[in-house]
Amino acid sequence: MSGAGARTVDVPDLVARARRGDPRAVARLISVVEGGAPQLREVMAALAPHSGGAYVIGLTGSPGVGKSTCTSALTTAYRRAGKRVGVLAVDPSSPFSGGALLGDRVRMNDHASDPGVYIRSMATRGRLGGLAEAAPQAVRVLDAAGCEVILVETVGVGQSEVEIASQADTTVVLLAPGMGDGIQAAKAGILEIGDVFVVNKADRDGADATVRELNHMLGLGAPRGPGDWRPTVTKTVAAHGEGVDDVVAALDKHRAWMEEHGELTARRTRRAAREIESIAVTALRARIADIGGDHRLGALSARIVAGELDPYAAADALLAEVTGR
Amino acid sequence: MSGAGARTVDVPDLVARARRGDPRAVARLISVVEGGAPQLREVMAALAPHSGGAYVIGLTGSPGVGKSTCTSALTTAYRRAGKRVGVLAVDPSSPFSGGALLGDRVRMNDHASDPGVYIRSMATRGRLGGLAEAAPQAVRVLDAAGCEVILVETVGVGQSEVEIASQADTTVVLLAPGMGDGIQAAKAGILEIGDVFVVNKADRDGADATVRELNHMLGLGAPRGPGDWRPTVTKTVAAHGEGVDDVVAALDKHRAWMEEHGELTARRTRRAAREIESIAVTALRARIADIGGDHRLGALSARIVAGELDPYAAADALLAEVTGR
Repeated sequence: MSGAGARTVDVPDLVARARRGDPRAVARLISVVEGGAPQLREVMAALAPHSGGAYVIGLTGSPGVGKSTCTSALTTAYRRAGKRVGVLAVDPSSPFSGGALLGDRVRMNDHASDPGVYIRSMATRGRLGGLAEAAPQAVRVLDAAGCEVILVETVGVGQSEVEIASQADTTVVLLAPGMGDGIQAAKAGILEIGDVFVVNKADRDGADATVRELNHMLGLGAPRGPGDWRPTVTKTVAAHGEGVDDVVAALDKHRAWMEEHGELTARRTRRAAREIESIAVTALRARIADIGGDHRLGALSARIVAGELDPYAAADALLAEVTGR
Repeated sequence: MSGAGARTVDVPDLVARARRGDPRAVARLISVVEGGAPQLREVMAALAPHSGGAYVIGLTGSPGVGKSTCTSALTTAYRRAGKRVGVLAVDPSSPFSGGALLGDRVRMNDHASDPGVYIRSMATRGRLGGLAEAAPQAVRVLDAAGCEVILVETVGVGQSEVEIASQADTTVVLLAPGMGDGIQAAKAGILEIGDVFVVNKADRDGADATVRELNHMLGLGAPRGPGDWRPTVTKTVAAHGEGVDDVVAALDKHRAWMEEHGELTARRTRRAAREIESIAVTALRARIADIGGDHRLGALSARIVAGELDPYAAADALLAEVTGR
């Protein structure tokens, strides 16, 4: 499997196999996506006609709220309903975290032998554009491979992780009692991205207080119109499967609301727009690095440090070279 | 003061007054910078020859570790040494946080009547490029206004906040005992940006354990060469001024090391390069939005949702229009 991103792959064959549900083909395609391999563009072009069938659910929350447990419980619930499920667990790319923090993933082992579930962790580092760019492409792979529900789980501590979770059809924000979570959630900016809020570990002290605090903070947000979605707040003890059906019901309700209001297509279109912009900006960054960029950028930077130039004038000079305008 | 960003200002006059230390002129220039006013470029060009004199110290850490208290204590220490001090407190721009979370700022009131200290909070929202772009420009204003030490304090919860704190000559990462802080710091990616680590609230249980955990995690990072800086770890009880002299000593030591190894200029040059890139990318985003971008982007996005196009091909099409290539 090593070096999968670098080797040349037979894209049409791989896509055909992935569409038949071959887990190794799916894994290989995600590796191409994750590694930003030369054939990334070919893969994405081949997948385009086969995407759009999956319902994408983002899950995020602070470390310790039980994201993996909830993801696992939701997987069980959707499997029981006969759906094919894809799980994408996105981890921060800190050089200090690495695999060591992936311990939670073992909770997903319940599903490891189920051919109707595809589970993948992503922790790409160093790739231009990073996870925020790679994750939606990995979702497209799972989508084309026939997953009907895709759960994208991220740690809600960094801007890019929050962004990834918000790039979903429905976004679930998880909290737990007694973590001072309300204010933390507000600071991390995850309150405004939630469609469905789940207070997990609800058998602990303070669960009702957290629900109240959450309802209060949600009420402080931008005023909603009569036709707007009002985020739901439910309680779970995901480790015992308690309340999980309520979460599924809330997800179904949000989906129905989205479809009824034309919001599903609208949201997907906005998501695609952000994706295009992100890829375009990454391509431009690469172009800046390419076109003698490093040397030129170094020279401009030295002039700023010397007080001979301001950064806006320097950016103008750089852009003129890169874009030919 | 309201609408300061929108009105036309006499830039040469304002810069001259700011250089004489007039706090209202400094405030006005930062408002221009923060608001992205039309005269932003003129301001930055006027400031360029007068920048580079200040030593910039970034401070970051999770909510509750005592950042404001430490910033205040360091301000006291530098004032005692006769230095002019600028403080830039950068807050997350969540629509849910707003001014309500700025309560900590009152701790800086000790310095409010000292003409040798300039304090400013920034919480810009909605501006293209955001705080990550505005903060270095605000630092330039304080620099040109004669601040010899500039403390830039950010909450270490979002990628952009961490980025701002890392855009300093020396970066201080604060932790507190008993917050499970080590692993949180690792996940937030703030371990690798610290030159000086401070375990604050060291009179609490677990301070030594946090120091040990921190030293352990720092040892797990990328191997350092013999000439590399080894981050220092000190303990403080900033609320009582305890250990603050040790932090100042660590900062002095890091500065001396930077100068000795030519690293100060190298770091400032890299910082300028990132700044140029960031401004260039923001300008390109604006151009995408301008050149019939919104309509064009919407059309491309709709084709992606319909499965007729992949996002990479769409980005290529968009870039061809924007850059003329």
